[in-house]
Amino acid sequence: MRIVVDAMGGDHAPGNVVAGVVAAIKEFPVTIILVGIEDRIKAELSKYSYPKDRIEIIHASKVVDMDDNPLDVIRKKKDCSISVGVNLLKQPGYDAFISAGNTGGLVAAATFYLRMIEGIDRPGIGLVIPQVNGVACLIDVGANAEPKPEHLLQYGRMARIYMQSVIGVADPTVGLVNIGEEEGKGSGFEKQAYQLLQEKMPRFIGNVEPNKLFMGKADCIVCTGFVGNVIIKLIEGFMESTGVVLKREVKKKPFAILGAFLMRGALKAVQKKVDYSEYGGAPLLGVNGIVMKSHGRSSPKAIKNAIRAAMREVEHNILDKMRSAVVG
Amino acid sequence: MRIVVDAMGGDHAPGNVVAGVVAAIKEFPVTIILVGIEDRIKAELSKYSYPKDRIEIIHASKVVDMDDNPLDVIRKKKDCSISVGVNLLKQPGYDAFISAGNTGGLVAAATFYLRMIEGIDRPGIGLVIPQVNGVACLIDVGANAEPKPEHLLQYGRMARIYMQSVIGVADPTVGLVNIGEEEGKGSGFEKQAYQLLQEKMPRFIGNVEPNKLFMGKADCIVCTGFVGNVIIKLIEGFMESTGVVLKREVKKKPFAILGAFLMRGALKAVQKKVDYSEYGGAPLLGVNGIVMKSHGRSSPKAIKNAIRAAMREVEHNILDKMRSAVVG
Repeated sequence: MRIVVDAMGGDHAPGNVVAGVVAAIKEFPVTIILVGIEDRIKAELSKYSYPKDRIEIIHASKVVDMDDNPLDVIRKKKDCSISVGVNLLKQPGYDAFISAGNTGGLVAAATFYLRMIEGIDRPGIGLVIPQVNGVACLIDVGANAEPKPEHLLQYGRMARIYMQSVIGVADPTVGLVNIGEEEGKGSGFEKQAYQLLQEKMPRFIGNVEPNKLFMGKADCIVCTGFVGNVIIKLIEGFMESTGVVLKREVKKKPFAILGAFLMRGALKAVQKKVDYSEYGGAPLLGVNGIVMKSHGRSSPKAIKNAIRAAMREVEHNILDKMRSAVVG
Repeated sequence: MRIVVDAMGGDHAPGNVVAGVVAAIKEFPVTIILVGIEDRIKAELSKYSYPKDRIEIIHASKVVDMDDNPLDVIRKKKDCSISVGVNLLKQPGYDAFISAGNTGGLVAAATFYLRMIEGIDRPGIGLVIPQVNGVACLIDVGANAEPKPEHLLQYGRMARIYMQSVIGVADPTVGLVNIGEEEGKGSGFEKQAYQLLQEKMPRFIGNVEPNKLFMGKADCIVCTGFVGNVIIKLIEGFMESTGVVLKREVKKKPFAILGAFLMRGALKAVQKKVDYSEYGGAPLLGVNGIVMKSHGRSSPKAIKNAIRAAMREVEHNILDKMRSAVVG
């Protein structure tokens, strides 16, 4: 398997990306194609010993920043690592593309160069989120801030295929993020989406309130990219600020310091379970190619996990399954 | 001061409400008027000894459930505790009304019976949320799922007055919940709201991303009732499910059990700081009366805190300040 990785994407690129890639090839049967500024990639690679034939480099002269206008990726900076990487998927011998870079830019490049799967109008970023037992796919977490109700129907169909083939849930259920459990709750958009899902979505179980988002109510949970992005950013910020407050409280008492020391394993296990950046990657579903978005702050381990997640999508032939299943 | 409390509102009513009221009159210089089914209130009150002249009862024959249609409060169940309580505010001698009951019903009754302050078209529920240092007012957290951009401008104006007079922030700043920091982010609604706020909102500081919601970016943070409700419910659910996972992890190791024991003070302090239900009440701003919404799962302490919060609003004469300041 040959997976393309954006060497320049993310807050700690290319360092963390290269470290994650080296770890991945040692653990998984995969060849990685690193795309980006060749000199900088080589400088990072020189820090490691690894099987040289398992990492290739393709030069891309430009770098897209997190603050760049997404459309620059396909306009002013066509020779950036995102555009070059995405375009490789149109050739045989490149199975998937992973980037921790500019989300909007990745969505724009993937949509523009790869085009949509038939039956899908807009791509959605699905994020595998932890549940009290198991996992669920939350979609969309930020590809399209303002979708139409029919796009949520498409997200649900794609998420079902993803959960079925990659995660192994036999007949996944679908829920809608809403501020009340009953039909008729929410804004006009949610009311319309509810109607449409009830009519056309197999295994639609109704609304999922945000306080039950981790309770295993549904295997696939659909929402607008605005709401999904609010959800993932809020959790990130809440964990951070709770951490700040906890540290401050612990420092007040020697017993608590000892307590935190004894609990550190459990606290880390919890953090690992709830910190979605550790999951490695969020699939961009709907485009004609296997594309994975990693968190901008991805650690080497997160990059390695993203590579593994992309490999699973390739192994399970998810693209073909989407192409044949979502039409209609 | 005389504060009206809905005895029948909330998941543990009238028990928790009456317990909180009894605690409040012992601590604060206030008289409470309990509205609801007289027999049931008396039965609860009989459990306590307290100065009898400081609690009055006004009978209301009907009870609104959490699942009732909000409009039933002003249609089929006019004699419910919410409607009777709200209507008391139109008479002299009743300073504020607090309910832990059906949110939609409370908003409907307050809007219908009290009418809006001049210059305000829609009420908003403001919630005082913790910041890494201090607090901020998040508005709206669920009065109006689908406001217009001008309603967010009105929310900002009201929240500024609230933060200034009740919390004591000299010249409060205002931010907009959005999925990016820069202008032009979000859906069409956020783009329009940004423009309007930039033009007309004093001390507008721009967008606040959800991962920075607790970082002290702005004193007042405006959003649609849909987004605000997603935010508060998500945090509630996240805390709950993280707690489940933490307990499970701790139980795996004896050292961690001891650690949790030693840390319990710090953990409780954090929970208290982040659990907004402990703050007691969220003011319903914009109506011609001081109305406070308490969490449906309010503890007696939360009810007591809500009474104190309502007292502060009365003391600071917030209604007159709103009436004279928000016009225009």
